Amino acid sequence: MIMKNWREKLQNLDTAEISDALDACGIEGALLKIKPAASSVKLVGEAFTVQYAPYEAQPTEYKNAGDYIDEVPAGAVVVLDNQGREDCTTWGDILTQVSLAKGIAGTVIYGAIRDVALIRELRYPVFSKNIYMRSGKNRVHKIAQQCPLNIEGIVINPGDIIVGDDNGVLVIPRAHLDEVIQKAENIKRTEQAIINSVKNGEKLSIARKLFRYDQPWLSKDTTV
Amino acid sequence: MIMKNWREKLQNLDTAEISDALDACGIEGALLKIKPAASSVKLVGEAFTVQYAPYEAQPTEYKNAGDYIDEVPAGAVVVLDNQGREDCTTWGDILTQVSLAKGIAGTVIYGAIRDVALIRELRYPVFSKNIYMRSGKNRVHKIAQQCPLNIEGIVINPGDIIVGDDNGVLVIPRAHLDEVIQKAENIKRTEQAIINSVKNGEKLSIARKLFRYDQPWLSKDTTV
Amino acid sequence: MIMKNWREKLQNLDTAEISDALDACGIEGALLKIKPAASSVKLVGEAFTVQYAPYEAQPTEYKNAGDYIDEVPAGAVVVLDNQGREDCTTWGDILTQVSLAKGIAGTVIYGAIRDVALIRELRYPVFSKNIYMRSGKNRVHKIAQQCPLNIEGIVINPGDIIVGDDNGVLVIPRAHLDEVIQKAENIKRTEQAIINSVKNGEKLSIARKLFRYDQPWLSKDTTV
Repeated sequence: MIMKNWREKLQNLDTAEISDALDACGIEGALLKIKPAASSVKLVGEAFTVQYAPYEAQPTEYKNAGDYIDEVPAGAVVVLDNQGREDCTTWGDILTQVSLAKGIAGTVIYGAIRDVALIRELRYPVFSKNIYMRSGKNRVHKIAQQCPLNIEGIVINPGDIIVGDDNGVLVIPRAHLDEVIQKAENIKRTEQAIINSVKNGEKLSIARKLFRYDQPWLSKDTTV
Repeated sequence: MIMKNWREKLQNLDTAEISDALDACGIEGALLKIKPAASSVKLVGEAFTVQYAPYEAQPTEYKNAGDYIDEVPAGAVVVLDNQGREDCTTWGDILTQVSLAKGIAGTVIYGAIRDVALIRELRYPVFSKNIYMRSGKNRVHKIAQQCPLNIEGIVINPGDIIVGDDNGVLVIPRAHLDEVIQKAENIKRTEQAIINSVKNGEKLSIARKLFRYDQPWLSKDTTV
Repeated sequence: MIMKNWREKLQNLDTAEISDALDACGIEGALLKIKPAASSVKLVGEAFTVQYAPYEAQPTEYKNAGDYIDEVPAGAVVVLDNQGREDCTTWGDILTQVSLAKGIAGTVIYGAIRDVALIRELRYPVFSKNIYMRSGKNRVHKIAQQCPLNIEGIVINPGDIIVGDDNGVLVIPRAHLDEVIQKAENIKRTEQAIINSVKNGEKLSIARKLFRYDQPWLSKDTTV
């Protein structure tokens, strides 16, 4: 149903090009307020979703926040919605080490993470709203997994495609993946043609007209 | 009207020294919430101002957010007010490449930027409120240029002097440039004398009195 | 009253392990919204507290914000509460140089700092809510020192122990220091045993049971 080499193709596209392709399809996919834990780290993979919520009553014994990592397949991206909470963490050193050992592609937390020194050292791709050290244990817990999430108004379904880089994170609905990749590749070619033209002395307003910046997602001859 | 070598002099002053000189003149010029895209990058230049606003009706065709860059002179700083919006970008790779090709000094965005990996790699000075990837195209557009801006309560007129470094960005009203530079240079000398004195074992409270830290902007003999 | 080698022991524990030990003691100590000025810088020391507040009337002459640094002993941590203000600074180059000359361990500002380029270059440990350049002089002043502070709901008394790293900053009440260190050391051993187990192919859910992740602060045999 989706093209075979989508991972390789998305590795060669950045979130700006993909976001413009989403715009061309009329789809909102950018996740506001979620930032990379390290610079120059790229994330591509299918979402494995996890929903967290606060405990309604304080647990009387020491409770792990949620078991799910053993079920996450290699190549997937853990997308965990802790409702944007900045005051307790739901990702840290153990989960990072387990994820690397299992070949999990990376992690997106709508909430906070800890052990960021290790995460940066190991170059494991993590994106989150905050960095802190106070644990989510006994404060929040898993209420569902592989369910739809809603992060800052964007719906993320299990199997949707997640891409992250220095600009932030976005989600591509699985059914639109091929169309988004094709448009993003055309956008990349259009922008590169404009940049080359300007470097050769053309005015930007002229270069934009020459290479149809009004429709950058169309396939075109950029060898003019 | 303003001293000839102001660029060179401002390259040797940091925003803390300049901000104290603005305080000594009774002028507010610091731009809150606008942060450097990279560390150790200095920005000095005259403001070329651009005002953006949301589209009142959604455009029916793909619209470029605004043409202005061909009119920005070498050495200027693009100061673009997108009303503090964090959810769409008004600066990215094409404008960065054009600016470098034209010798534009740098960019200040009261809003969001994208393609930050390239911006960091090329060391082009950019300061903004947010980093994101969702385009401003079809969401916002240019409504004026070379007009007064009001960013977080600070008025910026075309031709005002912009200085940015790791501490953030500020604006010096053009008419006060000479006075601000002279005071900032005296402040720098006063602070250096105090630091040297403390390194030689003096108490800070004594060193502050010795070098008139109550009036650091006055010209003084710091060879005591 | 407290163990002799607490500084050395805390240098070998990170804020995540210490925060979990605080949780096991039922103590809240994490300071929300206060971030490191540089990465990979560790802070350990006893709090020397300083309370700032706005001037009620604008001073008619140039006023230093507050003298206290000459009284801070070597090895202490300056903890300065400027009520979370992001729009003016209460720490910069002079205080950094004085602190290094005196052997002060580091600084935590619930407010803003400046001269961050120098702070990063010298690797002096500073944690703050904001980085900016506008001075606190004539805007805020010291109203008390060596008094209890309340930062984001956490009380900090003079002599309490401050620890900071890439995850952020926390405070350990002095009376609980020994208990917190012992629990944190056990937590560190438990987590290391779980990580080693998972690296050897065990499932995380099994490893957590094997090493009693429900009570990680207990002393245990991790050589299983």
